[in-house]
Amino acid sequence: MPPQIIHIAEKLATFSDHWNPRIVGDYNGNELRVAKVKGEFTWHSHADTDEMFMVVSGALDIEFRDGIRHLENGDILVVPKGVEHRPVAREECEILLLDRDGEPNTGGALSEYTRSKLETI
Amino acid sequence: MPPQIIHIAEKLATFSDHWNPRIVGDYNGNELRVAKVKGEFTWHSHADTDEMFMVVSGALDIEFRDGIRHLENGDILVVPKGVEHRPVAREECEILLLDRDGEPNTGGALSEYTRSKLETI
Repeated sequence: MPPQIIHIAEKLATFSDHWNPRIVGDYNGNELRVAKVKGEFTWHSHADTDEMFMVVSGALDIEFRDGIRHLENGDILVVPKGVEHRPVAREECEILLLDRDGEPNTGGALSEYTRSKLETI
Repeated sequence: MPPQIIHIAEKLATFSDHWNPRIVGDYNGNELRVAKVKGEFTWHSHADTDEMFMVVSGALDIEFRDGIRHLENGDILVVPKGVEHRPVAREECEILLLDRDGEPNTGGALSEYTRSKLETI
């Protein structure tokens, strides 16, 4: 059997909660994740992995200590390892993420949003 | 300065040739690439890296020795390392790719399509 296609929109349609990424694939020891987000997340950084964001629908601000980036549909931003950031979505936004296998969503920070054991869908 | 946003559509608008990926970013030692493709590519595999495909516009078939997968807009497929495959696009298709840094586009195969030194845009 050839490798499976990952239908991102179908994966996102299977859940509705915010800030709770699901694993949808693996690439070279990194988890491909999808999430729905809304509101202000936790300030955090990932000590040992870059983190890739891609906006699938809606818009996402990623705040850094020295400025803000505003991402719209189709935009990508790679947060380098160790760089503090905080995602903020005014309205619900759907995103695709790439993180090293097993990395908690809040990196080295702990908050009510922390998910260290993610579901695979 | 915060990390730069990668505007995929803008990057793709800067060139028109086929099967010649450009590097647009880096994630954990892997190159984020964009390409325009049309026609039949070379059968090949990548011995030391998975390869992620995402269709940005159009449609792409990825042929495997044991079947074909048909990807449409927004679909993702990860080709595991070592697995032979051949991308085929009936009409022009725009894709996002992820490959280990420096990996030639035809992996261990050589053809008229081989690009081993990619431009960063």
